[in-house]
Amino acid sequence: MPNKILVFQSDFGLLEGTVSQMHGIAMKVDPTLRIFDLTHLISKFNTWEASYSLYQTCHAWPEETVFVSVIDPGVGSSRVSVVAKTSAGHYIVTPDNGTLTHLKKHVGIEAVREIDEAVNRVKGSEKSHVFHGRDVYAYTGARLASGVIDFEGVGPAFPVQDIVMHKIIDPVIEADRVSGVLDIEDPHFGMVWTNIPLETFETLGIRFGDTVRTVIEHEGDEKYREVLTYCRTFSDVPKGEELVYNNELGKVAIATNLGSFVEKFGIKAGPAWKVSFDKLV
Amino acid sequence: MPNKILVFQSDFGLLEGTVSQMHGIAMKVDPTLRIFDLTHLISKFNTWEASYSLYQTCHAWPEETVFVSVIDPGVGSSRVSVVAKTSAGHYIVTPDNGTLTHLKKHVGIEAVREIDEAVNRVKGSEKSHVFHGRDVYAYTGARLASGVIDFEGVGPAFPVQDIVMHKIIDPVIEADRVSGVLDIEDPHFGMVWTNIPLETFETLGIRFGDTVRTVIEHEGDEKYREVLTYCRTFSDVPKGEELVYNNELGKVAIATNLGSFVEKFGIKAGPAWKVSFDKLV
Amino acid sequence: MPNKILVFQSDFGLLEGTVSQMHGIAMKVDPTLRIFDLTHLISKFNTWEASYSLYQTCHAWPEETVFVSVIDPGVGSSRVSVVAKTSAGHYIVTPDNGTLTHLKKHVGIEAVREIDEAVNRVKGSEKSHVFHGRDVYAYTGARLASGVIDFEGVGPAFPVQDIVMHKIIDPVIEADRVSGVLDIEDPHFGMVWTNIPLETFETLGIRFGDTVRTVIEHEGDEKYREVLTYCRTFSDVPKGEELVYNNELGKVAIATNLGSFVEKFGIKAGPAWKVSFDKLV
Repeated sequence: MPNKILVFQSDFGLLEGTVSQMHGIAMKVDPTLRIFDLTHLISKFNTWEASYSLYQTCHAWPEETVFVSVIDPGVGSSRVSVVAKTSAGHYIVTPDNGTLTHLKKHVGIEAVREIDEAVNRVKGSEKSHVFHGRDVYAYTGARLASGVIDFEGVGPAFPVQDIVMHKIIDPVIEADRVSGVLDIEDPHFGMVWTNIPLETFETLGIRFGDTVRTVIEHEGDEKYREVLTYCRTFSDVPKGEELVYNNELGKVAIATNLGSFVEKFGIKAGPAWKVSFDKLV
Repeated sequence: MPNKILVFQSDFGLLEGTVSQMHGIAMKVDPTLRIFDLTHLISKFNTWEASYSLYQTCHAWPEETVFVSVIDPGVGSSRVSVVAKTSAGHYIVTPDNGTLTHLKKHVGIEAVREIDEAVNRVKGSEKSHVFHGRDVYAYTGARLASGVIDFEGVGPAFPVQDIVMHKIIDPVIEADRVSGVLDIEDPHFGMVWTNIPLETFETLGIRFGDTVRTVIEHEGDEKYREVLTYCRTFSDVPKGEELVYNNELGKVAIATNLGSFVEKFGIKAGPAWKVSFDKLV
Repeated sequence: MPNKILVFQSDFGLLEGTVSQMHGIAMKVDPTLRIFDLTHLISKFNTWEASYSLYQTCHAWPEETVFVSVIDPGVGSSRVSVVAKTSAGHYIVTPDNGTLTHLKKHVGIEAVREIDEAVNRVKGSEKSHVFHGRDVYAYTGARLASGVIDFEGVGPAFPVQDIVMHKIIDPVIEADRVSGVLDIEDPHFGMVWTNIPLETFETLGIRFGDTVRTVIEHEGDEKYREVLTYCRTFSDVPKGEELVYNNELGKVAIATNLGSFVEKFGIKAGPAWKVSFDKLV
């Protein structure tokens, strides 16, 4: 029995009816579906952000939830359209363009099916080549979430090892230092989230209240150097001061209490932004 | 049997509780309604945009879906409040202020009823004259979508020919040229959508890969002139280049691949923006 | 029987998956819940605005609706997490940080329970101290809205008189003048809403079409002085002119017809912004 939950993500914005057409197509498939929006404000064409957002969010949803993710800079081109089943039991309907990177790396992809558009495409939509979010992805997602088709009904099997992946950098431990990269910034509150798991960080013997020398470099240029305290939560430091903490995903992160670290120091995120923490004794 | 789907559109924005009050009133009428938001970011008081947005979106939704559209610069004045039934079987609850223009022109309006506020207005709301979206439109839409009233129960019949219409300009074919206007811009990705149907365009004998001289004028001033290729999709041209394509509504459109045509060339949309395509031999 | 309606409010923004995780946790508790969003664009950390927004909105919703409000600048600190039951029969799940101010003052709080995190916290979330919106508030709200727990099941009783309150200023009548403060501005259309109830205003004998001398001061400096007409609705004055009217909450308000009063005159809202209306004879 499918759980009938269908969650949409895109870079379509909220200004007009693009997203609503996807909702409508899903309602045509099955009006008892439970429709949600993850976000439609992914930066335009940014498949890294799309991938991270799914990794950040899917785990909070019930097994069998179907996610439709439409960040699709190559819409209508030869890029493949797929449905991935994660090891946690979620389904992701998406173009195969890097959007599955973090789920594959951190959660695991159990199997992938390529969408057979002969079956899983809105009838009569064949002349449109620029809105597969509506004509293919929303439609296929709705059919899967409602039980009209099962996972096999999506189309032929696609090799998991062939999924398009962004490059992922792993954190490194040496002596009293752990280093990694700034994976993503919180675009609203302005924290930065590293790729360093809490467990890795704690193997250095760091506990709440300990201090760490925190250095951020961008392409070799030092952009930030400070001794910070590893805190339980933001308000463990005064307003406007910085801290290191465990974010909602079990990763080490850096914030300014009641302020924006990103704006205050001109820091961004991405593979070119390296971060290191040295335990101080 | 109504399908219980109720879709809201407005120019109320997302910053505070105005939209939520409309949702709440609908839930008071029938908690089994399926509530959706088309967009609440229509430009303030812009009934042209409201009209286009409904035309762009309604077709994707099941028959009998009820749309509540509240772009209402004359709230509380003598403008009439109506429910229109389209030839496609959708219901639109709206002030009669031009919001029904495109649906009437391109889809057809089968019948209109004027809302009888003696029946279809939240009890106790009589002293408020500035939020008919909540007190009249959401309430009436919810009653119709849930089956508390049928279409006749909205109020007395209203002549379809009396609906307030914006002026619509039709495209023109002469020899190897088709000309029209820029109906609307995509406010997020920055394409422009013309009023020229794909079939009209193709009667010139233009096929994918053919080139057309594309000219855009604003009140007689030439703003853009270029030979563009008619493409299946954006990525048929390199990043940052322009193309002509068939948009999601079966209309000819102009885009910059992975960029914004509107921003790059300072183009806007509206009846003063003329466009023409010449077939090149 | 709970009505299964769960409404979320936060200052989390719409850019990424924070809100969606709260939705997901609720779906894990009970996939038949009816989930809504009031707004997620409350100004960051602004518990006054959060409080006003609940007061503005809750009354439109059915009794027993559960609101989860996460404006939580002290997340993870010693601030108490509570569920309040209002005299209108709504439940508010929130940190106790001023968010309940307007509901307590204008609607009444019948009883409060402190959330017992030993029971009402997502299992396995104990190591995270920065996302109680997901781990505690969404989870508790979903359990209450679905009937998994009743109000007593939230945790021990908390004294209503101990709720954290913002200072509220009451309006004052003297002779032919009523004075108060600008409680809040409409951040989208740019009206300002006073704390003066319509009934207080009308005790001066003011009726539609009467004129009032309207004065706004900020910390003793006069910022606006004009004779305005008390109108039924915006379009009772020409485009671009100002008016006094009864807003959607039964409070006296000031607007510019088809314009923004706030932008035009540089007016803001808050306890430092005093307003007075003198009846003219």
